[in-house]
Amino acid sequence: MNIPDKVVNRLTLYHYILEDLREDEDYISSMKIAELLNIDNSQVRKDIKYLDNSGKCRVGYDAKKLKRAIEVKLGFEKTKDAFIIGAGNLGSALAKYDSFKDYGLNILAMFDNDPQKIGSNINGKEIFDITKIGNLAKRLNVDIAILTVPKNSAKGIAQYIAGAGIKYIWNFTPCVLDVPKDVKVWNENLIGSFLQFTNKDEVKENKNDN
Amino acid sequence: MNIPDKVVNRLTLYHYILEDLREDEDYISSMKIAELLNIDNSQVRKDIKYLDNSGKCRVGYDAKKLKRAIEVKLGFEKTKDAFIIGAGNLGSALAKYDSFKDYGLNILAMFDNDPQKIGSNINGKEIFDITKIGNLAKRLNVDIAILTVPKNSAKGIAQYIAGAGIKYIWNFTPCVLDVPKDVKVWNENLIGSFLQFTNKDEVKENKNDN
Repeated sequence: MNIPDKVVNRLTLYHYILEDLREDEDYISSMKIAELLNIDNSQVRKDIKYLDNSGKCRVGYDAKKLKRAIEVKLGFEKTKDAFIIGAGNLGSALAKYDSFKDYGLNILAMFDNDPQKIGSNINGKEIFDITKIGNLAKRLNVDIAILTVPKNSAKGIAQYIAGAGIKYIWNFTPCVLDVPKDVKVWNENLIGSFLQFTNKDEVKENKNDN
Repeated sequence: MNIPDKVVNRLTLYHYILEDLREDEDYISSMKIAELLNIDNSQVRKDIKYLDNSGKCRVGYDAKKLKRAIEVKLGFEKTKDAFIIGAGNLGSALAKYDSFKDYGLNILAMFDNDPQKIGSNINGKEIFDITKIGNLAKRLNVDIAILTVPKNSAKGIAQYIAGAGIKYIWNFTPCVLDVPKDVKVWNENLIGSFLQFTNKDEVKENKNDN
């Protein structure tokens, strides 16, 4: 069964909550989850219905079972290997984001074109020359790349790595990439999500400089 | 009219495309936008209907008018001031992300608790001691904070800045924050979006280490 995007997103948040429970908290109610996320209780219960063996019982959900059910359904144990392209601040931050591993994202290596960076490593991930990506993608059987290069080189680099065998690009740059149709681009559109939030919540604007 | 989240997100991507057009490209078709994003042409036309004065004409959309219509509708010129909490790699990357300014997000300052960082600046944004946030939020009339601190201090810091007058937290940490109800948390759930993508596209998993 295909789970809607927003449900996947919320189930991940429920998992964060379950991870943070104290050892002696064996059960959790949908109400508690709903309160922490400021959403409807009925929404939480509906989302959990997508899971198998959610651990629902009289006193709430069995926390361990619910956690496990989310892990199985969303495939946390199906490890996907990926490269980071661009060893700048954002690339380095993502390389240091150890939580990724727990959720099935395994970053194997990084790529850059800066001779100063090539050969060093960040959080145990070696930085290779970008021209080595085709070879390494093939040898390590990696087809996912996380793109964190500067805006003005994003399109060129995307085409280059697509030519080198990358099939999925998780794109953190504020650019629409133009790659062959067999390459999937996942846009992590930070500006888009900021605008979603501010439009919905009608955040006050700064009147001083308008 | 309230614009659905996904439409806001796509309109931002259309804006990226329009920004990248050559000077002599006066018109753009919905088909071209659809092709670049690998979505339906009808979807693009539907999204653009949310805009006023989209510049639609016989030969496509007037690129400048369409770009302008997106800017007006999504409020790119309604500047929202914000602080970054946590001057690590991710915080630094966001501080250097100059595109934010073009879309209405103005980062005024950063906060950290590391004496080595306090007093220095990143991309012109000074790093202040976290204990100064209440005072500065009040003086500068800022109620948005971008949270990029390590996972294990996220909850404590979120409560602290909520107590200091922050009303909106754009949360980049893999944690569900527990803050008073009058504080809105916008979860930038990176792991959630990765799982959305990989679940939908059925990315191959690495069989070696399972």
